[in-house]
Amino acid sequence: MNGPVPPKTLHSLTRPKGFSVASATCGLKPSGKPDLAIIAADAPCPAAGVFTQNKVKGEPVKVGMRHLRATGGLLRAVVVNSGCSNVATGEQGRRDAVAMCKQVADALGCATREVLPCSTGVIGRHLEMGKLLPGIDAAAAKLARGKRADGDTAMAILTTDLVPKAASRTVTLSGKRITLGGVCKGSGMIAPNMATMLAFITTDAAVAPDMLKAMLKEATGGSFNRVTVDTDTSTSDSVIILANGAAGNRKITKPGKSYDVLLEALTDLCRDLAYQLVCDGEGATKVFRVNVSGARSVRDADKVGRSVAESPLVKTAVHGADPNWGRLAMAVGKSGAAVKPESMSLSVGGVCVFKAGMPTALNAADQRRLAKAMSAYEVRFGIALGLGKHGCEWLGCDLSREYIRINADYTT
Amino acid sequence: MNGPVPPKTLHSLTRPKGFSVASATCGLKPSGKPDLAIIAADAPCPAAGVFTQNKVKGEPVKVGMRHLRATGGLLRAVVVNSGCSNVATGEQGRRDAVAMCKQVADALGCATREVLPCSTGVIGRHLEMGKLLPGIDAAAAKLARGKRADGDTAMAILTTDLVPKAASRTVTLSGKRITLGGVCKGSGMIAPNMATMLAFITTDAAVAPDMLKAMLKEATGGSFNRVTVDTDTSTSDSVIILANGAAGNRKITKPGKSYDVLLEALTDLCRDLAYQLVCDGEGATKVFRVNVSGARSVRDADKVGRSVAESPLVKTAVHGADPNWGRLAMAVGKSGAAVKPESMSLSVGGVCVFKAGMPTALNAADQRRLAKAMSAYEVRFGIALGLGKHGCEWLGCDLSREYIRINADYTT
Repeated sequence: MNGPVPPKTLHSLTRPKGFSVASATCGLKPSGKPDLAIIAADAPCPAAGVFTQNKVKGEPVKVGMRHLRATGGLLRAVVVNSGCSNVATGEQGRRDAVAMCKQVADALGCATREVLPCSTGVIGRHLEMGKLLPGIDAAAAKLARGKRADGDTAMAILTTDLVPKAASRTVTLSGKRITLGGVCKGSGMIAPNMATMLAFITTDAAVAPDMLKAMLKEATGGSFNRVTVDTDTSTSDSVIILANGAAGNRKITKPGKSYDVLLEALTDLCRDLAYQLVCDGEGATKVFRVNVSGARSVRDADKVGRSVAESPLVKTAVHGADPNWGRLAMAVGKSGAAVKPESMSLSVGGVCVFKAGMPTALNAADQRRLAKAMSAYEVRFGIALGLGKHGCEWLGCDLSREYIRINADYTT
Repeated sequence: MNGPVPPKTLHSLTRPKGFSVASATCGLKPSGKPDLAIIAADAPCPAAGVFTQNKVKGEPVKVGMRHLRATGGLLRAVVVNSGCSNVATGEQGRRDAVAMCKQVADALGCATREVLPCSTGVIGRHLEMGKLLPGIDAAAAKLARGKRADGDTAMAILTTDLVPKAASRTVTLSGKRITLGGVCKGSGMIAPNMATMLAFITTDAAVAPDMLKAMLKEATGGSFNRVTVDTDTSTSDSVIILANGAAGNRKITKPGKSYDVLLEALTDLCRDLAYQLVCDGEGATKVFRVNVSGARSVRDADKVGRSVAESPLVKTAVHGADPNWGRLAMAVGKSGAAVKPESMSLSVGGVCVFKAGMPTALNAADQRRLAKAMSAYEVRFGIALGLGKHGCEWLGCDLSREYIRINADYTT
């Protein structure tokens, strides 16, 4: 059986020039594993973030959004803890999130608003600041000693994840070699004492803050926003990028070819991280891709992809390797998108099972291919709506007993 | 452990005067259990239906909707089979659904369009008409012999359900005693080789077809449309009511007091059936109520109730009796409704856990009450949004390993 595989290297964040990371163990997690990380640029640099749509936002999310607005999109560092999400904690929660930033700012010699906080873990409890602040000092001391790389950083942000997740890409812009690196965490969208999808990306490309913001939004839309583990939207989801310009390329200040080249590399990196995230979904034993084409609009394509990827009956069919394509038809029909059964085709692993309103006649060889496609680690569903020219791809994972065990049996 | 309990009597459909039911075993189900039922009025009478919103509708659904339109809301009988849903079957599926109606019409001596067909079971396969039509003849023969009641009717419509579901109500209108009876089936919204929520209701009240349609829509909105087992919407969902006027009340032809009294009884009956349905949800071991108040609109209240009732993390928390109310906050926040954490209160079994943006300080007695409330068979969540005066109640069931077993391990 395939499953989540740790990446070959965890040093992706420090591959781009001019970044350092450091981790610490504050004791916020009962497991005693690393639970704090600082990601720092050598100097304040353009930065952008994409945050959860949930209306109950964590205090760190609100503070981070305010800091990015206040600086016009500049950050010196990101500070992250796991073990407590600091969500639904009111005024004290806000003060704690600011205090995290201030502790880092004092150590690095920058402004508090140049630090962005992220927290992941149980909702409705206050941060144990007596443990957290000394941890920040310990990590900052490593940075002060000139330490750049720290393999534990990708570990320190994890909650129910089984493996750390990291990736990097390189691309050439105006004759300069640009590097992008990223780490992420997330297993259930929000889990028992733990929570959230977080991703942190560094690059040495030179990009103006407004362009960086647009680029991150677009890359996220085509990657992290098209994966689902359990339909639940965390209160803390954040994707943060820092771009320090150390590679020396001509600064990207408007849309154009350079923008497109970097956007493509960034989207590719985000898709890689998103795929690792789904492979490590809570209880996941298999993954599946939902390829939607022929939709009247991108919005419709998205509705169909999401409806199929989120359907518990599709997810359990993938788990049981059941070639029950009626569930695909059901999930397409309930999506809310424009759908006409008589124009629609469905395929599983390349085998067409439904066309023009009717089941396809399958011979014995087709049946064997169908069974094999459903038994694979990665299952591929094709949905051709036959109504337009828009499409998209969604990623999902199966629903297993292990998901129930993780989320029901381990009580608080 | 509580669980689904069969109702005391299965003869609810023939409690109102002037209705007969009969069942048969056609052999469409591998289990060899009853799989066909006819519900007949002594003469064509006002009838109405509410059908699935899924855009991939079963052929019987489309035929039934057309028959109701063609007669202006009159039916003599409903014919139902389980074991095959006749969905995604194209032109042949349509012809088969019409042939079911014709077979009943010929036996009862009415028009084909005065019969409404319903099918539930696997999607994407054709009905075995060679088994089905003789079954219809067998059931019709029982009716011809003057047989009225048949306890197997409530059984014949079942798929993965563990128990049959039935209820009845009486009410007085213009000095006449009115009876309503109903049966329903549904366990997963759609399940491996099986599918759908179906409900059939008879009453001897005299109601004009347009009033009956309005009344059924309203009653369904406050009952069946506020329960969820697994978020998946079947391609065959149907709620059908027949009102033959045999009680002799003054016919309801416009809104007013009589309309309201009958609507209340009908809604109460539908809620009873809906509760039985949730108790027998696939893999369900517990049920929960989500009481929403203080919403800006009914639409907002509905979004919040649905979001909480459908959340897999709320459902697994109920299963594990985990008083992790952070998941409630998450599900409220992701609902899309207007929500302000600082105005919101959350309670579990009457214990307030969150108020004005902050967790509530709970003493040891509160903690015990909270643990007891989560361990009960029926868990009650209260969500007061503090933004308006609208509210609603949703019903859900827990998510267990058994749901996975039913839907993954029993492959086609």
